[in-house]
Amino acid sequence: MSHSLLDSLHAAVPALRLKTDPGDLEHYGRDWTRRWTPNPLAIALPGSVEEVQAVMRWASEQAVKVVPSGGRTGLSGGAVAANGELVLSLERLNKPLSFDRVDRTLTVQAGMPLQAVHEAAREQGLVYPVDFAARGSCSIGGNIATNAGGIHVIRYGNTREWIAGLKVVTASGELLDLNRALVKNSSGYDLRQLMIGSEGTLGIVVEATLRLTDPPPPSNVMLLALPSFEVLMEVFAAFRQRLQLEAFEFFTDIALRHVLAHGAAKPFEEVHPYYVVTEFAIGDEAGEAAVMAAFEDCMAHGWVSDGVISQSDAQARQLWRLREDITEALAPHVPYKNDVSVRISQMPVFLAQTMQLLGEAYPHFEVVWFGHIGDGNLHINVLKPAGMAQADFVRDCEQVTRLLAQVLKRHGGSISAEHGIGLVKKAYLDSTRSPAEIALMRGIRQAMDPAGLLNPGKLFDP
Amino acid sequence: MSHSLLDSLHAAVPALRLKTDPGDLEHYGRDWTRRWTPNPLAIALPGSVEEVQAVMRWASEQAVKVVPSGGRTGLSGGAVAANGELVLSLERLNKPLSFDRVDRTLTVQAGMPLQAVHEAAREQGLVYPVDFAARGSCSIGGNIATNAGGIHVIRYGNTREWIAGLKVVTASGELLDLNRALVKNSSGYDLRQLMIGSEGTLGIVVEATLRLTDPPPPSNVMLLALPSFEVLMEVFAAFRQRLQLEAFEFFTDIALRHVLAHGAAKPFEEVHPYYVVTEFAIGDEAGEAAVMAAFEDCMAHGWVSDGVISQSDAQARQLWRLREDITEALAPHVPYKNDVSVRISQMPVFLAQTMQLLGEAYPHFEVVWFGHIGDGNLHINVLKPAGMAQADFVRDCEQVTRLLAQVLKRHGGSISAEHGIGLVKKAYLDSTRSPAEIALMRGIRQAMDPAGLLNPGKLFDP
Repeated sequence: MSHSLLDSLHAAVPALRLKTDPGDLEHYGRDWTRRWTPNPLAIALPGSVEEVQAVMRWASEQAVKVVPSGGRTGLSGGAVAANGELVLSLERLNKPLSFDRVDRTLTVQAGMPLQAVHEAAREQGLVYPVDFAARGSCSIGGNIATNAGGIHVIRYGNTREWIAGLKVVTASGELLDLNRALVKNSSGYDLRQLMIGSEGTLGIVVEATLRLTDPPPPSNVMLLALPSFEVLMEVFAAFRQRLQLEAFEFFTDIALRHVLAHGAAKPFEEVHPYYVVTEFAIGDEAGEAAVMAAFEDCMAHGWVSDGVISQSDAQARQLWRLREDITEALAPHVPYKNDVSVRISQMPVFLAQTMQLLGEAYPHFEVVWFGHIGDGNLHINVLKPAGMAQADFVRDCEQVTRLLAQVLKRHGGSISAEHGIGLVKKAYLDSTRSPAEIALMRGIRQAMDPAGLLNPGKLFDP
Repeated sequence: MSHSLLDSLHAAVPALRLKTDPGDLEHYGRDWTRRWTPNPLAIALPGSVEEVQAVMRWASEQAVKVVPSGGRTGLSGGAVAANGELVLSLERLNKPLSFDRVDRTLTVQAGMPLQAVHEAAREQGLVYPVDFAARGSCSIGGNIATNAGGIHVIRYGNTREWIAGLKVVTASGELLDLNRALVKNSSGYDLRQLMIGSEGTLGIVVEATLRLTDPPPPSNVMLLALPSFEVLMEVFAAFRQRLQLEAFEFFTDIALRHVLAHGAAKPFEEVHPYYVVTEFAIGDEAGEAAVMAAFEDCMAHGWVSDGVISQSDAQARQLWRLREDITEALAPHVPYKNDVSVRISQMPVFLAQTMQLLGEAYPHFEVVWFGHIGDGNLHINVLKPAGMAQADFVRDCEQVTRLLAQVLKRHGGSISAEHGIGLVKKAYLDSTRSPAEIALMRGIRQAMDPAGLLNPGKLFDP
């Protein structure tokens, strides 16, 4: 069956590059989650938009399901192909296409890694400001499919704000050229915005026109030590009020210990329960005075126990490592991840209730939490005890996620802040979206991909 | 028939306020366009979200079509009720509901006028930065339905960027609570973004949570006189490069003459063919030097013939009037309006081709154009000669719109930058959106409003 299918694909798209080795099937068949056994039909690596269209026309005719694939750094199983799907990898479509100085836009192919996008923008004296730790491996198309957030959302917003235009191939192989970088365009439904964050279930992003902006003024990085999580919002308010924050990230001492074990340099002599890494524009005397005023205000109130400010780019990078290396440092412990958000103003009460819930629910598990406090976004990582079976661990964790989802629902929060729903969170989608919303989403999916070919089983069951 | 329908509405929603006087039917049955004869069934003025839901449940049962209605300042016929529809006016739902200092959001009912939103934000020491001349009459719900742009898009973007959450009543009377002001929320399709700009065809916006921002630094307003339209982009580049522009608007001498006849004060002794009003942050010496440098650069190149900079708030308002009063000054001439956009970088060639087209096509009509040059947005107003029949005039103008649509299509532009498609532009939708896009839009509409009850005939034929 698969054999004759691939013969027909070869006949339909003769020059298409295909991979079918077992090692490739495993490599391309999953993302950074490790819960599912990859089992794709084959890996298609189109070299042009026309080939992507031809593959989708063939898939429509043959009723073959397709998993669009970027850098596969996702944490929600959104790029998993475990049921004989064709993986359509954008990795060969990874080039910058054009830069427009007047529009200040950069047009790129979807498979371009985020870091390469950053570099291409910098070459033009501008920046693409969305950024996060997976920048070297993730692709801009995947960023768009999950509306990726990251460490600068507090200043620049999510991926959504930076997409001036999108080229998208539909389930039937049509090429849509959405918004074409127009600043103003009130001509019907904004399908570009609908595509952003749709996790490959409505179309395959093949090209994106990105808005760029001026580089930020020189910034400093500060690490703060906090005596309790109850003061987090006070510290945030004290800094936000006085400074243009580029980032405001926090993590616990448990997170820090994992990063130190992973090779980072110890920032303080003493141990503190909580830490904040914040970055802000500085440069003139007024800016420096504002930093000192914020810091002294926090010290005077007892909200901050210690602090260090970067004196060089190297030290800034070192301080950032303490936050950015957490995910990598935890990876060997096969963490079960939650990526939740609430309104910023709901954060204190949500944090308190969540801390209590986690303390009661996970007495025997190590829980590492960190996150983007200024965006209302908390990452909760539960580490698997050595020797525990993965299936048992996940089952136990999911019981807690069910409780967490109830807390979230009470606070109007989201079960997925920036990772997407994928396979991992679809059982909890109804904590964030109402039955009416889910029904409308299914209706839209049905309208745009009636045969359910694109990334089936992600977001909701087929 | 209507009588028994209204009886059943009264039975279904007993406390609902209804208007059926001929004067009311005419007043609420149209927007600022004057091409259609209003003919609504009745005007419903719900006093609560629950009443909006009850009306839609009744409309679903009785298969009655509904035209959602805000301030009716639209220029595309989007709020016209000419075929026995029930007009559902949000005008009684016009209150601010809550302000959140941590989230920096203001939650308001959809019928609140934009100017009242501005005032409510200012009371909190913040601003809602979307602004345009109809601020006193238009409603925030209508702004959302057309993704309104206006005079500050160059600095702050369109309405879309400022909507943190939306409450929407669907065709079947369900209440959707979309995004709930979350900064990060990657949990499926962003129906909030889909609703924005959908012109009341997918749901009725009943509440909005608006993002607010810090007030801009003190700004100055400058009026520039230009010798030709070919230098517009050069002047724009010279100013954008050196200053944080809050606005950059241009207009022709013909537009100015109408505004002067309407009562504005003459800015220059001499007559110039083109003018720019620009607003920018200023305050320190570096800022003032940057303004002078931009101005002198333009003078030295011959791109600018004269200029005046505001010395007081009163003078700033006076300069702004020259641009903002154009629409009102033209109204007695029953203008036929085009509201088109291209990428900013396409503006010079598009302007040249459009000027040529208009010169050839309208030798006997007076054409007044002005617009938001920094957003690639041009407003073209053709004035009806006295004594010409309205129907003949519109027919002649539509022939030119067909030619203009072809020019737009070649440049990847939009037939509606900020007014929406409504009734006025739906025949030209295919100049901006491809057949595949239009088919998908229709599919989405079908999925969300299967009976086609909401604002039927707007955007596309039912």
